Amino acid sequence: MNIEIRQDKTSGDWVIIAPGRGKRPSDFVKKPEGAKSREPEYDPDCPFCPGNEDKIPPILEELPGPSGAIWQTRVIPNKYPIVIPEAEEPESGDEFYRARPATGIHEIIIESPRHNLDLSQMPAAAVEMVLKTYRNRYLNITESDPEFSIVIFRNRGESAGTSLIHPHSQLIASRIISPRLERRTEVARDYFRRQGNCLYCDILRCEDELGKRVVARTNSFIAFIPFAARVPFEIWIAPRSHQPVFGSITDEEIRELAEILIRILRLLEKPLGKFDYNYVLSELPPSPEREACSHWHLKIYPRLTQAAGFEIETGIGVNPTLPEKNVEELIKKAAG
Amino acid sequence: MNIEIRQDKTSGDWVIIAPGRGKRPSDFVKKPEGAKSREPEYDPDCPFCPGNEDKIPPILEELPGPSGAIWQTRVIPNKYPIVIPEAEEPESGDEFYRARPATGIHEIIIESPRHNLDLSQMPAAAVEMVLKTYRNRYLNITESDPEFSIVIFRNRGESAGTSLIHPHSQLIASRIISPRLERRTEVARDYFRRQGNCLYCDILRCEDELGKRVVARTNSFIAFIPFAARVPFEIWIAPRSHQPVFGSITDEEIRELAEILIRILRLLEKPLGKFDYNYVLSELPPSPEREACSHWHLKIYPRLTQAAGFEIETGIGVNPTLPEKNVEELIKKAAG
Repeated sequence: MNIEIRQDKTSGDWVIIAPGRGKRPSDFVKKPEGAKSREPEYDPDCPFCPGNEDKIPPILEELPGPSGAIWQTRVIPNKYPIVIPEAEEPESGDEFYRARPATGIHEIIIESPRHNLDLSQMPAAAVEMVLKTYRNRYLNITESDPEFSIVIFRNRGESAGTSLIHPHSQLIASRIISPRLERRTEVARDYFRRQGNCLYCDILRCEDELGKRVVARTNSFIAFIPFAARVPFEIWIAPRSHQPVFGSITDEEIRELAEILIRILRLLEKPLGKFDYNYVLSELPPSPEREACSHWHLKIYPRLTQAAGFEIETGIGVNPTLPEKNVEELIKKAAG
Repeated sequence: MNIEIRQDKTSGDWVIIAPGRGKRPSDFVKKPEGAKSREPEYDPDCPFCPGNEDKIPPILEELPGPSGAIWQTRVIPNKYPIVIPEAEEPESGDEFYRARPATGIHEIIIESPRHNLDLSQMPAAAVEMVLKTYRNRYLNITESDPEFSIVIFRNRGESAGTSLIHPHSQLIASRIISPRLERRTEVARDYFRRQGNCLYCDILRCEDELGKRVVARTNSFIAFIPFAARVPFEIWIAPRSHQPVFGSITDEEIRELAEILIRILRLLEKPLGKFDYNYVLSELPPSPEREACSHWHLKIYPRLTQAAGFEIETGIGVNPTLPEKNVEELIKKAAG
């Protein structure tokens, strides 16, 4: 049997693992885009480059660089937000046409003053500042509204939905609970009621023991390709100990997270070259059970394949590679 | 208020409608790809071109062209299937690692002997034959196994997940019920229990009366942009009368469906040029309530935007255009 369907136990989603399609990692590698590799250190038209502050909204927060000479990170409101901080209005619409204002906070985290320095190339101390900025914004927002569900994410490259070169992440805080988020919450709660444990803690322990999908470990973190990876080389990085929300991460853990994140991104670049990806900092939305059931983690989705009609319609993922083979490939490259 | 969240009543999914991002239809138009427009009528390396039958599995069915001279459509098993017709095996795996064989049928419908003739350019009589082939395969498969859930879809262009130029569609029959399909079934069943009507019939009637999202009508069909369209210029085509499954479509309805499908694709090409898209023939999976609750429809998803980190994680769609404005744009172009 070389085609099987696997279930992601954290969401209930099914993924078809169809490695018989003869794809090898090299099949996914994009042709190097000449223009991109020639990006300058500074672009006078880039709103995120130093000196172009008149092109951006007022800066909300700024963290110094490791050397202290110039800023490392800056936070600004997104000029083209998808949620906006206006007063909550009542819902409008009837049975079929239910709509309401998209209330929330949408921020941009500029990760470096340098236009062409991508995250994987930054020194660990710089990535630490990026992660500290995530934590600052997380705490700032949850203090003002503990009911906000926070998603921190990074889109790298056009296949990942961004055309902006300058390294940046985004944060969206809102109260929108999608069926997908609801289901994930239900799944974790049901598991806790049945087993008395956090579902994620148990999965992590199991992956750690099995080892065959583990890509990297530190004292506090484990990085692995999930059993039901939706896309080739999908990687989850999670704290080994139970941590419901990202906001409580310590300085020492941030140091380790920066280290393992850089290591993983550079490891992926070995078979994939300069690849496009999204990463997302994921946790369950606020709820009475969150303390017991949520366990934050960072998911990296390389954007090597395009979802087609079947996946869009059914929500069933199709992964043309075997997760365990992806791990072998990465470990081999790391050793070689 | 220029940003709102809207709910798709058939799935419960939320979509953020954020037209404030300053996008116009022309922003989505891809640069014309020189190579594609120069595609030949016949490609000696294309497995779907006539004369290259040694490159494909045995033909399952063939329908004659309108003139009767050569075949119009051919059906073959997919050489790189994502489901395979082997015996159902018991599930393997434990709590975390649930997997089973991906059992099912995966067929390719070659739509024309001509390598470079896309569906929107074909004469109506040829598109009718394509749709009749869909119906034949649908009936063939459900006769052999009425429990199969059938998805018929078309991927056009690389952004839609295909690199094959030769015009073709696909059919996948399986028993995989994803959480997404389950939810859609529940939503339709709940509505029927509350209202005594088919949810889709009621939405269609409502859209027909309102008119502001309707793009085209025939005697038997209506085409409209849904209230909570996930992507710019998403269009649904549905029979006005209650038809649970596609397999029961009549010859006369196929004639009308071919006509409205060509009309819609050509209409979309006016603002979008040669655009990539998926279309999917959608109905609820087999269940005791299907007769009352299902109502087949064809959904066209132009692939003009890329889902980014937030959408991937939450399942909340982000549409940077207003559905009602999309309709205006199309109607204006049709008139102009």
